Amino acid sequence: MTTTQRFDQSESLHPSEARKLFRQGTIAPTSGWSAGFTQTNLISLPRDWAYDFLLFAQRNPKPCPVLDISDEGSYTTTLAPDADLRTDYPAYRIWRNGQLAEEVGDATEFWRDDLVSFHIGCSFTFETVLVEAGIPLRHREQGVNVPMYTTQRQCRPGGRISSPLVVSMRPVPASMVAEAVTASNTMTGAHGAPVHVGDPGSLLIDDIDRPQFGDRVTFHDGDVPVFWACGVTPQAAILASGVPFAITHAPGHMLITDQPDRHVAGDHRGV
Amino acid sequence: MTTTQRFDQSESLHPSEARKLFRQGTIAPTSGWSAGFTQTNLISLPRDWAYDFLLFAQRNPKPCPVLDISDEGSYTTTLAPDADLRTDYPAYRIWRNGQLAEEVGDATEFWRDDLVSFHIGCSFTFETVLVEAGIPLRHREQGVNVPMYTTQRQCRPGGRISSPLVVSMRPVPASMVAEAVTASNTMTGAHGAPVHVGDPGSLLIDDIDRPQFGDRVTFHDGDVPVFWACGVTPQAAILASGVPFAITHAPGHMLITDQPDRHVAGDHRGV
Repeated sequence: MTTTQRFDQSESLHPSEARKLFRQGTIAPTSGWSAGFTQTNLISLPRDWAYDFLLFAQRNPKPCPVLDISDEGSYTTTLAPDADLRTDYPAYRIWRNGQLAEEVGDATEFWRDDLVSFHIGCSFTFETVLVEAGIPLRHREQGVNVPMYTTQRQCRPGGRISSPLVVSMRPVPASMVAEAVTASNTMTGAHGAPVHVGDPGSLLIDDIDRPQFGDRVTFHDGDVPVFWACGVTPQAAILASGVPFAITHAPGHMLITDQPDRHVAGDHRGV
Repeated sequence: MTTTQRFDQSESLHPSEARKLFRQGTIAPTSGWSAGFTQTNLISLPRDWAYDFLLFAQRNPKPCPVLDISDEGSYTTTLAPDADLRTDYPAYRIWRNGQLAEEVGDATEFWRDDLVSFHIGCSFTFETVLVEAGIPLRHREQGVNVPMYTTQRQCRPGGRISSPLVVSMRPVPASMVAEAVTASNTMTGAHGAPVHVGDPGSLLIDDIDRPQFGDRVTFHDGDVPVFWACGVTPQAAILASGVPFAITHAPGHMLITDQPDRHVAGDHRGV
Protein backbone atom coordinates (compact mmCIF):
# COMPACT_ATOMS: atom_id res chain seq x y z
CA MET A 1 0.00 0.00 0.00
CA THR A 2 2.53 2.57 -1.13
CA THR A 3 0.72 3.97 -4.17
CA THR A 4 0.90 7.74 -4.26
CA GLN A 5 -1.23 9.43 -6.85
CA ARG A 6 -0.94 13.13 -7.54
CA PHE A 7 -3.79 15.36 -8.64
CA ASP A 8 -3.06 18.71 -10.24
CA GLN A 9 -6.51 19.97 -9.26
CA SER A 10 -6.42 18.67 -5.69
CA GLU A 11 -6.00 22.16 -4.22
CA SER A 12 -9.38 23.33 -5.51
CA LEU A 13 -11.39 20.16 -4.81
CA HIS A 14 -14.32 20.60 -2.45
CA PRO A 15 -13.79 18.49 0.71
CA SER A 16 -16.72 16.22 -0.17
CA GLU A 17 -15.21 15.56 -3.63
CA ALA A 18 -11.82 14.79 -2.10
CA ARG A 19 -13.39 12.40 0.43
CA LYS A 20 -15.27 10.67 -2.39
CA LEU A 21 -11.98 10.04 -4.23
CA PHE A 22 -10.47 8.51 -1.10
CA ARG A 23 -13.61 6.47 -0.44
CA GLN A 24 -13.25 5.07 -3.98
CA GLY A 25 -9.67 3.97 -3.38
CA THR A 26 -7.35 6.90 -4.13
CA ILE A 27 -4.30 6.93 -1.82
CA ALA A 28 -2.31 10.19 -1.54
CA PRO A 29 -0.87 12.49 1.14
CA THR A 30 -3.32 15.36 1.60
CA SER A 31 -0.94 18.33 2.07
CA GLY A 32 -2.30 21.13 -0.11
CA TRP A 33 -5.62 19.42 -0.87
CA SER A 34 -8.84 21.47 -0.63
CA ALA A 35 -7.02 24.64 0.40
CA GLY A 36 -8.72 26.55 3.20
CA PHE A 37 -10.42 23.52 4.79
CA THR A 38 -9.25 21.98 8.06
CA GLN A 39 -7.66 18.53 7.96
CA THR A 40 -7.61 16.20 10.96
CA ASN A 41 -5.67 13.31 12.45
CA LEU A 42 -7.61 10.22 13.59
CA ILE A 43 -7.15 8.03 16.63
CA SER A 44 -9.89 5.51 17.40
CA LEU A 45 -9.51 3.58 20.66
CA PRO A 46 -11.67 1.21 22.72
CA ARG A 47 -13.94 3.08 25.17
CA ASP A 48 -11.95 1.53 28.03
CA TRP A 49 -8.94 3.62 26.93
CA ALA A 50 -10.83 6.80 25.98
CA TYR A 51 -10.44 8.61 29.31
CA ASP A 52 -6.71 7.93 29.45
CA PHE A 53 -6.26 9.28 25.95
CA LEU A 54 -8.42 12.36 26.50
CA LEU A 55 -6.53 13.08 29.74
CA PHE A 56 -3.26 12.76 27.81
CA ALA A 57 -4.57 15.08 25.06
CA GLN A 58 -5.78 17.66 27.58
CA ARG A 59 -2.33 17.67 29.18
CA ASN A 60 -0.56 17.98 25.83
CA PRO A 61 -2.65 20.32 23.68
CA LYS A 62 0.18 21.31 21.33
CA PRO A 63 0.57 17.83 19.77
CA CYS A 64 -3.07 16.85 20.52
CA PRO A 65 -5.50 19.74 19.90
CA VAL A 66 -8.84 17.90 20.08
CA LEU A 67 -11.32 19.33 17.54
CA ASP A 68 -14.06 16.73 18.00
CA ILE A 69 -14.77 13.43 19.73
CA SER A 70 -17.26 11.02 18.17
CA ASP A 71 -19.67 9.12 20.38
CA GLU A 72 -18.78 5.52 21.21
CA GLY A 73 -19.21 3.29 18.15
CA SER A 74 -20.05 6.21 15.85
CA TYR A 75 -18.20 6.63 12.55
CA THR A 76 -19.34 10.20 11.99
CA THR A 77 -18.04 13.59 13.12
CA THR A 78 -19.58 17.04 13.42
CA LEU A 79 -16.56 18.36 11.48
CA ALA A 80 -17.84 16.75 8.24
CA PRO A 81 -21.40 15.52 8.77
CA ASP A 82 -21.62 13.38 5.62
CA ALA A 83 -18.19 11.75 6.02
CA ASP A 84 -17.75 8.07 6.91
CA LEU A 85 -14.76 7.69 9.24
CA ARG A 86 -14.25 4.08 8.09
CA THR A 87 -13.60 4.94 4.43
CA ASP A 88 -12.94 8.64 3.85
CA TYR A 89 -9.25 8.86 4.81
CA PRO A 90 -6.78 8.03 2.02
CA ALA A 91 -5.09 5.41 4.22
CA TYR A 92 -5.33 3.88 7.69
CA ARG A 93 -3.14 2.08 10.15
CA ILE A 94 -4.44 -0.83 12.24
CA TRP A 95 -2.69 -1.33 15.59
CA ARG A 96 -2.75 -4.42 17.80
CA ASN A 97 -1.07 -4.74 21.21
CA GLY A 98 0.88 -1.53 20.69
CA GLN A 99 2.27 -2.62 17.32
CA LEU A 100 1.47 -1.55 13.76
CA ALA A 101 -0.36 -4.58 12.33
CA GLU A 102 -1.22 -3.34 8.85
CA GLU A 103 -1.85 -0.33 6.64
CA VAL A 104 -5.06 -0.32 4.58
CA GLY A 105 -7.12 1.97 2.37
CA ASP A 106 -10.47 1.06 3.97
CA ALA A 107 -11.04 0.44 7.68
CA THR A 108 -14.61 -0.86 7.49
CA GLU A 109 -13.82 -4.49 8.32
CA PHE A 110 -11.77 -3.41 11.37
CA TRP A 111 -14.37 -1.08 12.93
CA ARG A 112 -15.75 -2.00 16.36
CA ASP A 113 -18.79 -0.83 18.30
CA ASP A 114 -16.66 0.14 21.30
CA LEU A 115 -14.37 2.54 19.42
CA VAL A 116 -14.22 6.21 20.43
CA SER A 117 -12.76 8.42 17.66
CA PHE A 118 -10.69 11.51 18.44
CA HIS A 119 -10.18 14.17 15.76
CA ILE A 120 -6.92 16.07 16.23
CA GLY A 121 -5.88 19.29 14.46
CA CYS A 122 -3.25 18.98 11.72
CA SER A 123 -0.28 21.07 10.62
CA PHE A 124 -1.56 21.00 7.04
CA THR A 125 -4.14 23.51 8.30
CA PHE A 126 -1.57 26.11 9.29
CA GLU A 127 0.31 25.54 6.04
CA THR A 128 -2.44 27.64 4.45
CA VAL A 129 -1.46 30.65 6.58
CA LEU A 130 2.23 30.00 5.89
CA VAL A 131 1.54 30.06 2.14
CA GLU A 132 -0.52 33.24 2.55
CA ALA A 133 2.45 34.78 4.37
CA GLY A 134 4.65 33.99 1.36
CA ILE A 135 6.64 31.23 3.07
CA PRO A 136 7.82 28.49 0.67
CA LEU A 137 6.89 24.90 1.63
CA ARG A 138 9.80 22.72 0.50
CA HIS A 139 7.97 19.40 0.81
CA ARG A 140 5.25 20.62 -1.54
CA GLU A 141 7.81 22.06 -3.99
CA GLN A 142 9.57 18.68 -3.96
CA GLY A 143 6.35 16.65 -4.20
CA VAL A 144 6.94 14.64 -1.03
CA ASN A 145 5.17 14.05 2.29
CA VAL A 146 6.23 16.36 5.16
CA PRO A 147 9.02 14.82 7.30
CA MET A 148 8.03 13.85 10.87
CA TYR A 149 10.35 12.85 13.72
CA THR A 150 10.12 11.16 17.10
CA THR A 151 11.92 13.45 19.57
CA GLN A 152 13.79 13.17 22.85
CA ARG A 153 11.11 15.25 24.56
CA GLN A 154 8.50 13.39 26.63
CA CYS A 155 4.86 14.46 26.80
CA ARG A 156 3.20 14.70 30.22
CA PRO A 157 1.62 11.25 30.81
CA GLY A 158 -2.15 10.82 31.27
CA GLY A 159 -3.37 7.62 32.96
CA ARG A 160 -1.90 4.65 31.07
CA ILE A 161 -0.82 6.82 28.11
CA SER A 162 2.71 8.18 27.76
CA SER A 163 4.63 9.18 24.65
CA PRO A 164 7.57 11.01 23.20
CA LEU A 165 6.63 14.17 21.32
CA VAL A 166 6.46 13.75 17.52
CA VAL A 167 7.14 16.85 15.40
CA SER A 168 6.78 17.83 11.77
CA MET A 169 9.59 19.89 10.20
CA ARG A 170 9.60 22.56 7.50
CA PRO A 171 12.75 24.30 6.25
CA VAL A 172 12.07 28.07 6.40
CA PRO A 173 14.30 30.85 5.00
CA ALA A 174 15.97 32.55 7.97
CA SER A 175 14.42 35.90 7.10
CA MET A 176 10.95 34.35 7.30
CA VAL A 177 11.22 32.33 10.53
CA ALA A 178 9.63 35.04 12.70
CA GLU A 179 6.73 35.34 10.27
CA ALA A 180 6.27 31.54 10.30
CA VAL A 181 6.09 31.65 14.12
CA THR A 182 3.60 34.49 14.38
CA ALA A 183 1.40 33.21 11.53
CA SER A 184 1.11 29.67 12.92
CA ASN A 185 0.69 30.99 16.47
CA THR A 186 -2.83 32.12 15.54
CA MET A 187 -3.85 28.52 14.70
CA THR A 188 -4.23 27.16 18.23
CA GLY A 189 -6.41 24.26 17.04
CA ALA A 190 -3.69 23.16 14.61
CA HIS A 191 -0.60 22.88 16.86
CA GLY A 192 -0.06 26.67 17.04
CA ALA A 193 3.46 28.10 17.18
CA PRO A 194 6.56 25.90 16.67
CA VAL A 195 7.99 23.95 19.62
CA HIS A 196 11.62 24.24 18.42
CA VAL A 197 13.51 26.41 15.89
CA GLY A 198 16.96 25.39 14.58
CA ASP A 199 19.49 23.06 16.28
CA PRO A 200 17.90 19.67 15.48
CA GLY A 201 20.51 17.90 17.63
CA SER A 202 18.94 19.03 20.91
CA LEU A 203 15.49 17.81 19.88
CA LEU A 204 15.66 14.77 17.60
CA ILE A 205 16.58 11.23 18.50
CA ASP A 206 17.97 10.67 15.02
CA ASP A 207 19.32 12.28 11.84
CA ILE A 208 17.27 15.08 10.23
CA ASP A 209 17.73 13.25 6.92
CA ARG A 210 16.08 10.12 8.35
CA PRO A 211 12.55 11.05 9.47
CA GLN A 212 10.58 8.34 11.30
CA PHE A 213 7.45 9.25 9.27
CA GLY A 214 6.97 10.93 5.88
CA ASP A 215 9.83 11.79 3.55
CA ARG A 216 13.24 13.43 3.64
CA VAL A 217 13.11 17.01 2.34
CA THR A 218 15.99 19.01 0.77
CA PHE A 219 17.04 22.31 2.37
CA HIS A 220 17.85 25.42 0.31
CA ASP A 221 20.83 27.59 1.33
CA GLY A 222 19.80 29.76 4.26
CA ASP A 223 16.86 27.55 5.32
CA VAL A 224 16.41 26.91 9.06
CA PRO A 225 14.60 23.76 10.30
CA VAL A 226 11.39 24.75 12.10
CA PHE A 227 9.59 22.08 14.16
CA TRP A 228 5.90 21.97 15.04
CA ALA A 229 4.15 19.54 17.42
CA CYS A 230 2.55 16.82 15.29
CA GLY A 231 -0.71 14.88 15.38
CA VAL A 232 1.21 11.65 14.79
CA THR A 233 2.12 11.84 18.51
CA PRO A 234 -0.91 9.62 19.36
CA GLN A 235 0.60 6.89 17.17
CA ALA A 236 3.86 7.11 19.13
CA ALA A 237 1.66 6.89 22.25
CA ILE A 238 0.05 3.66 21.02
CA LEU A 239 3.53 2.19 20.60
CA ALA A 240 4.86 3.49 23.94
CA SER A 241 1.77 2.55 25.94
CA GLY A 242 0.87 -0.86 24.49
CA VAL A 243 -2.69 0.14 23.57
CA PRO A 244 -4.43 -3.19 22.76
CA PHE A 245 -6.28 -2.00 19.65
CA ALA A 246 -6.49 1.22 17.65
CA ILE A 247 -7.25 2.57 14.21
CA THR A 248 -5.44 5.72 13.05
CA HIS A 249 -4.92 7.55 9.76
CA ALA A 250 -1.63 6.85 7.97
CA PRO A 251 0.78 9.77 8.60
CA GLY A 252 0.14 12.58 6.11
CA HIS A 253 -3.11 10.97 4.90
CA MET A 254 -5.76 13.02 6.68
CA LEU A 255 -9.51 13.57 6.81
CA ILE A 256 -10.43 16.71 4.87
CA THR A 257 -13.28 18.26 6.87
CA ASP A 258 -15.94 20.81 5.95
CA GLN A 259 -14.60 23.30 8.52
CA PRO A 260 -12.94 26.47 7.20
CA ASP A 261 -9.39 26.90 8.51
CA ARG A 262 -10.34 30.10 10.28
CA HIS A 263 -12.38 27.96 12.71
CA VAL A 264 -9.06 26.65 14.03
CA ALA A 265 -7.94 30.18 14.94
CA GLY A 266 -9.64 30.64 18.28
CA ASP A 267 -12.23 28.10 19.35
CA HIS A 268 -15.63 27.54 17.79
CA ARG A 269 -16.77 24.45 19.66
CA GLY A 270 -19.86 24.22 21.79
CA VAL A 271 -22.31 26.83 23.00
CA MET B 1 -22.01 29.12 56.32
CA THR B 2 -22.78 32.59 55.04
CA THR B 3 -19.97 34.54 56.72
CA THR B 4 -18.34 36.94 54.32
CA GLN B 5 -15.19 38.59 55.53
CA ARG B 6 -13.55 41.40 53.60
CA PHE B 7 -9.83 42.07 53.51
CA ASP B 8 -8.55 45.44 52.39
CA GLN B 9 -5.19 43.93 51.52
CA SER B 10 -6.57 40.91 49.68
CA GLU B 11 -5.56 42.26 46.27
CA SER B 12 -1.87 42.16 47.11
CA LEU B 13 -1.79 38.86 49.02
CA HIS B 14 0.49 36.21 47.55
CA PRO B 15 -1.60 33.19 46.47
CA SER B 16 0.00 30.96 49.12
CA GLU B 17 -0.93 33.49 51.84
CA ALA B 18 -4.50 33.69 50.54
CA ARG B 19 -4.79 29.90 50.50
CA LYS B 20 -3.46 29.77 54.05
CA LEU B 21 -6.23 32.14 55.22
CA PHE B 22 -8.86 29.93 53.58
CA ARG B 23 -7.28 26.79 55.00
CA GLN B 24 -7.55 28.39 58.45
CA GLY B 25 -11.27 29.05 58.02
CA THR B 26 -11.73 32.39 56.26
CA ILE B 27 -14.76 32.40 53.94
CA ALA B 28 -14.98 35.14 51.27
CA PRO B 29 -15.63 35.49 47.53
CA THR B 30 -12.23 35.75 45.81
CA SER B 31 -12.95 38.35 43.10
CA GLY B 32 -10.02 40.78 43.18
CA TRP B 33 -7.85 38.67 45.47
CA SER B 34 -4.16 38.17 44.59
CA ALA B 35 -4.40 40.29 41.45
CA GLY B 36 -2.57 38.82 38.47
CA PHE B 37 -2.88 35.19 39.56
CA THR B 38 -5.24 32.72 37.90
CA GLN B 39 -8.24 31.48 39.88
CA THR B 40 -9.96 28.19 39.14
CA ASN B 41 -13.30 26.42 39.52
CA LEU B 42 -13.33 22.92 41.01
CA ILE B 43 -15.36 19.89 40.08
CA SER B 44 -14.36 16.56 41.64
CA LEU B 45 -16.23 13.50 40.38
CA PRO B 46 -15.91 9.73 40.78
CA ARG B 47 -13.57 8.17 38.19
CA ASP B 48 -16.56 6.38 36.67
CA TRP B 49 -17.92 9.79 35.59
CA ALA B 50 -14.60 11.39 34.61
CA TYR B 51 -14.69 10.53 30.90
CA ASP B 52 -18.24 11.81 30.50
CA PHE B 53 -17.32 15.08 32.17
CA LEU B 54 -14.09 15.55 30.20
CA LEU B 55 -16.00 14.81 26.97
CA PHE B 56 -18.58 17.42 27.99
CA ALA B 57 -15.82 19.94 28.78
CA GLN B 58 -14.04 19.31 25.49
CA ARG B 59 -17.29 19.94 23.64
CA ASN B 60 -18.03 23.11 25.61
CA PRO B 61 -14.69 24.89 26.10
CA LYS B 62 -16.19 28.34 26.67
CA PRO B 63 -17.91 27.43 29.98
CA CYS B 64 -15.40 24.63 30.75
CA PRO B 65 -11.81 25.60 29.81
CA VAL B 66 -9.85 22.78 31.50
CA LEU B 67 -6.57 24.08 32.95
CA ASP B 68 -5.53 20.92 34.79
CA ILE B 69 -6.83 17.48 35.77
CA SER B 70 -5.57 15.85 38.94
CA ASP B 71 -4.82 12.13 38.97
CA GLU B 72 -7.48 9.86 40.49
CA GLY B 73 -7.59 10.29 44.27
CA SER B 74 -5.03 13.10 44.28
CA TYR B 75 -5.77 16.36 46.11
CA THR B 76 -2.97 18.30 44.44
CA THR B 77 -2.69 20.24 41.18
CA THR B 78 0.24 21.39 39.05
CA LEU B 79 -1.36 24.86 39.08
CA ALA B 80 -0.42 25.36 42.77
CA PRO B 81 1.95 22.57 43.83
CA ASP B 82 1.71 23.20 47.61
CA ALA B 83 -2.08 23.61 47.68
CA ASP B 84 -4.39 21.04 49.28
CA LEU B 85 -7.58 20.77 47.24
CA ARG B 86 -9.51 19.57 50.31
CA THR B 87 -8.95 22.74 52.37
CA ASP B 88 -7.64 25.65 50.28
CA TYR B 89 -10.89 26.95 48.73
CA PRO B 90 -12.85 29.42 50.86
CA ALA B 91 -15.98 27.24 50.58
CA TYR B 92 -17.19 23.97 49.04
CA ARG B 93 -20.39 22.38 47.94
CA ILE B 94 -21.08 18.68 48.52
CA TRP B 95 -23.45 17.06 46.00
CA ARG B 96 -25.32 13.76 46.36
CA ASN B 97 -27.57 12.19 43.71
CA GLY B 98 -27.59 15.38 41.67
CA GLN B 99 -28.65 17.56 44.60
CA LEU B 100 -26.78 20.09 46.71
CA ALA B 101 -26.37 18.33 50.06
CA GLU B 102 -24.37 20.89 52.02
CA GLU B 103 -21.97 23.81 51.85
CA VAL B 104 -18.82 23.60 53.99
CA GLY B 105 -15.53 25.40 54.56
CA ASP B 106 -13.40 22.23 54.59
CA ALA B 107 -13.93 19.19 52.33
CA THR B 108 -11.45 16.82 53.99
CA GLU B 109 -14.04 14.51 55.55
CA PHE B 110 -15.86 14.18 52.21
CA TRP B 111 -12.83 13.34 50.06
CA ARG B 112 -12.73 9.93 48.36
CA ASP B 113 -9.95 7.92 46.72
CA ASP B 114 -11.88 7.59 43.47
CA LEU B 115 -12.33 11.35 42.90
CA VAL B 116 -10.89 12.97 39.78
CA SER B 117 -10.56 16.75 40.13
CA PHE B 118 -11.01 19.10 37.18
CA HIS B 119 -9.65 22.66 37.36
CA ILE B 120 -11.63 25.07 35.17
CA GLY B 121 -10.64 28.62 34.23
CA CYS B 122 -12.51 31.45 35.94
CA SER B 123 -13.86 34.82 34.86
CA PHE B 124 -12.10 36.48 37.81
CA THR B 125 -8.94 35.94 35.75
CA PHE B 126 -10.09 38.09 32.85
CA GLU B 127 -11.34 40.74 35.27
CA THR B 128 -7.67 41.69 35.61
CA VAL B 129 -7.47 42.60 31.92
CA LEU B 130 -10.81 44.42 32.16
CA VAL B 131 -9.47 46.52 35.03
CA GLU B 132 -6.26 47.17 33.08
CA ALA B 133 -8.43 48.35 30.17
CA GLY B 134 -10.09 50.87 32.52
CA ILE B 135 -13.46 49.09 32.63
CA PRO B 136 -15.32 49.55 35.94
CA LEU B 137 -16.43 46.36 37.70
CA ARG B 138 -19.76 47.17 39.37
CA HIS B 139 -19.84 44.09 41.63
CA ARG B 140 -16.47 45.03 43.12
CA GLU B 141 -17.49 48.69 43.52
CA GLN B 142 -20.62 47.49 45.33
CA GLY B 143 -18.79 44.89 47.43
CA VAL B 144 -20.86 41.93 46.26
CA ASN B 145 -20.28 38.59 44.51
CA VAL B 146 -20.63 38.65 40.70
CA PRO B 147 -24.17 37.69 39.56
CA MET B 148 -24.48 34.34 37.73
CA TYR B 149 -27.49 33.02 35.81
CA THR B 150 -28.76 29.73 34.43
CA THR B 151 -29.68 30.38 30.79
CA GLN B 152 -32.06 29.01 28.17
CA ARG B 153 -29.10 27.88 26.07
CA GLN B 154 -28.14 24.18 26.23
CA CYS B 155 -24.54 22.98 26.10
CA ARG B 156 -23.66 20.14 23.71
CA PRO B 157 -24.06 16.92 25.79
CA GLY B 158 -21.15 14.56 26.43
CA GLY B 159 -21.95 10.98 27.47
CA ARG B 160 -24.26 11.10 30.51
CA ILE B 161 -23.57 14.82 31.10
CA SER B 162 -25.88 17.56 29.81
CA SER B 163 -26.45 21.07 31.12
CA PRO B 164 -27.82 24.50 30.47
CA LEU B 165 -25.13 27.14 30.02
CA VAL B 166 -24.45 29.25 33.15
CA VAL B 167 -23.14 32.79 32.61
CA SER B 168 -21.65 35.55 34.74
CA MET B 169 -22.79 39.13 34.05
CA ARG B 170 -21.01 42.46 34.33
CA PRO B 171 -22.63 45.83 33.55
CA VAL B 172 -20.27 47.66 31.14
CA PRO B 173 -20.59 51.28 29.97
CA ALA B 174 -21.78 51.21 26.33
CA SER B 175 -18.68 53.04 25.14
CA MET B 176 -16.46 50.30 26.64
CA VAL B 177 -18.30 47.15 25.50
CA ALA B 178 -16.08 46.61 22.46
CA GLU B 179 -12.96 46.97 24.61
CA ALA B 180 -14.39 44.45 27.12
CA VAL B 181 -14.93 41.99 24.26
CA THR B 182 -11.48 42.33 22.71
CA ALA B 183 -9.66 42.33 26.06
CA SER B 184 -11.38 39.18 27.37
CA ASN B 185 -11.07 37.50 23.96
CA THR B 186 -7.34 37.08 24.59
CA MET B 187 -8.03 34.97 27.72
CA THR B 188 -9.04 31.71 26.06
CA GLY B 189 -8.32 29.70 29.22
CA ALA B 190 -10.70 31.90 31.20
CA HIS B 191 -13.92 31.76 29.13
CA GLY B 192 -12.60 34.18 26.45
CA ALA B 193 -14.96 36.65 24.77
CA PRO B 194 -18.57 37.13 25.96
CA VAL B 195 -21.31 34.77 24.74
CA HIS B 196 -24.03 37.45 24.77
CA VAL B 197 -24.14 41.28 24.89
CA GLY B 198 -27.32 43.15 25.86
CA ASP B 199 -30.93 41.88 25.61
CA PRO B 200 -31.05 39.61 28.68
CA GLY B 201 -34.55 38.40 27.73
CA SER B 202 -33.29 36.23 24.87
CA LEU B 203 -30.71 34.51 27.08
CA LEU B 204 -31.87 34.24 30.69
CA ILE B 205 -34.53 31.99 32.15
CA ASP B 206 -35.32 34.56 34.82
CA ASP B 207 -35.08 38.18 35.87
CA ILE B 208 -31.68 39.92 35.65
CA ASP B 209 -32.30 41.17 39.19
CA ARG B 210 -32.67 37.60 40.47
CA PRO B 211 -29.42 35.73 39.71
CA GLN B 212 -29.38 32.00 40.47
CA PHE B 213 -25.88 32.34 41.99
CA GLY B 214 -24.00 35.29 43.53
CA ASP B 215 -25.59 38.66 44.13
CA ARG B 216 -27.74 41.24 42.38
CA VAL B 217 -25.67 44.14 41.05
CA THR B 218 -26.87 47.72 40.39
CA PHE B 219 -26.49 49.20 36.88
CA HIS B 220 -25.32 52.75 36.26
CA ASP B 221 -27.02 54.82 33.55
CA GLY B 222 -25.67 53.74 30.17
CA ASP B 223 -24.41 50.34 31.36
CA VAL B 224 -25.06 47.34 29.09
CA PRO B 225 -25.26 43.79 30.53
CA VAL B 226 -22.38 41.68 29.17
CA PHE B 227 -22.51 37.91 29.70
CA TRP B 228 -19.57 35.50 29.81
CA ALA B 229 -19.69 31.69 29.94
CA CYS B 230 -19.21 30.65 33.57
CA GLY B 231 -17.36 27.87 35.37
CA VAL B 232 -20.44 27.24 37.52
CA THR B 233 -21.85 25.39 34.48
CA PRO B 234 -20.47 22.08 35.84
CA GLN B 235 -22.66 22.57 38.93
CA ALA B 236 -25.71 22.99 36.71
CA ALA B 237 -24.55 19.81 34.94
CA ILE B 238 -24.48 17.89 38.24
CA LEU B 239 -28.08 18.94 38.83
CA ALA B 240 -29.23 18.24 35.27
CA SER B 241 -27.42 14.89 34.97
CA GLY B 242 -27.98 13.37 38.41
CA VAL B 243 -24.28 12.84 39.12
CA PRO B 244 -24.25 10.53 42.19
CA PHE B 245 -21.48 12.35 44.10
CA ALA B 246 -19.36 15.46 43.56
CA ILE B 247 -17.41 18.11 45.40
CA THR B 248 -17.24 21.61 43.90
CA HIS B 249 -16.18 25.05 45.07
CA ALA B 250 -19.00 27.37 46.22
CA PRO B 251 -19.77 29.86 43.42
CA GLY B 252 -17.40 32.85 43.57
CA HIS B 253 -15.16 31.10 46.13
CA MET B 254 -12.23 29.91 43.98
CA LEU B 255 -8.80 28.36 44.27
CA ILE B 256 -6.14 31.04 43.86
CA THR B 257 -3.33 29.32 41.94
CA ASP B 258 0.34 30.17 41.49
CA GLN B 259 -0.11 30.66 37.72
CA PRO B 260 0.22 34.21 36.35
CA ASP B 261 -2.88 35.32 34.43
CA ARG B 262 -0.87 35.64 31.23
CA HIS B 263 -0.62 31.82 31.17
CA VAL B 264 -4.33 31.77 30.42
CA ALA B 265 -3.79 33.84 27.27
CA GLY B 266 -2.79 31.17 24.81
CA ASP B 267 -1.98 27.73 26.13
CA HIS B 268 0.98 26.78 28.29
CA ARG B 269 0.12 23.19 29.13
CA GLY B 270 2.25 20.21 28.27
CA VAL B 271 5.39 19.80 26.20
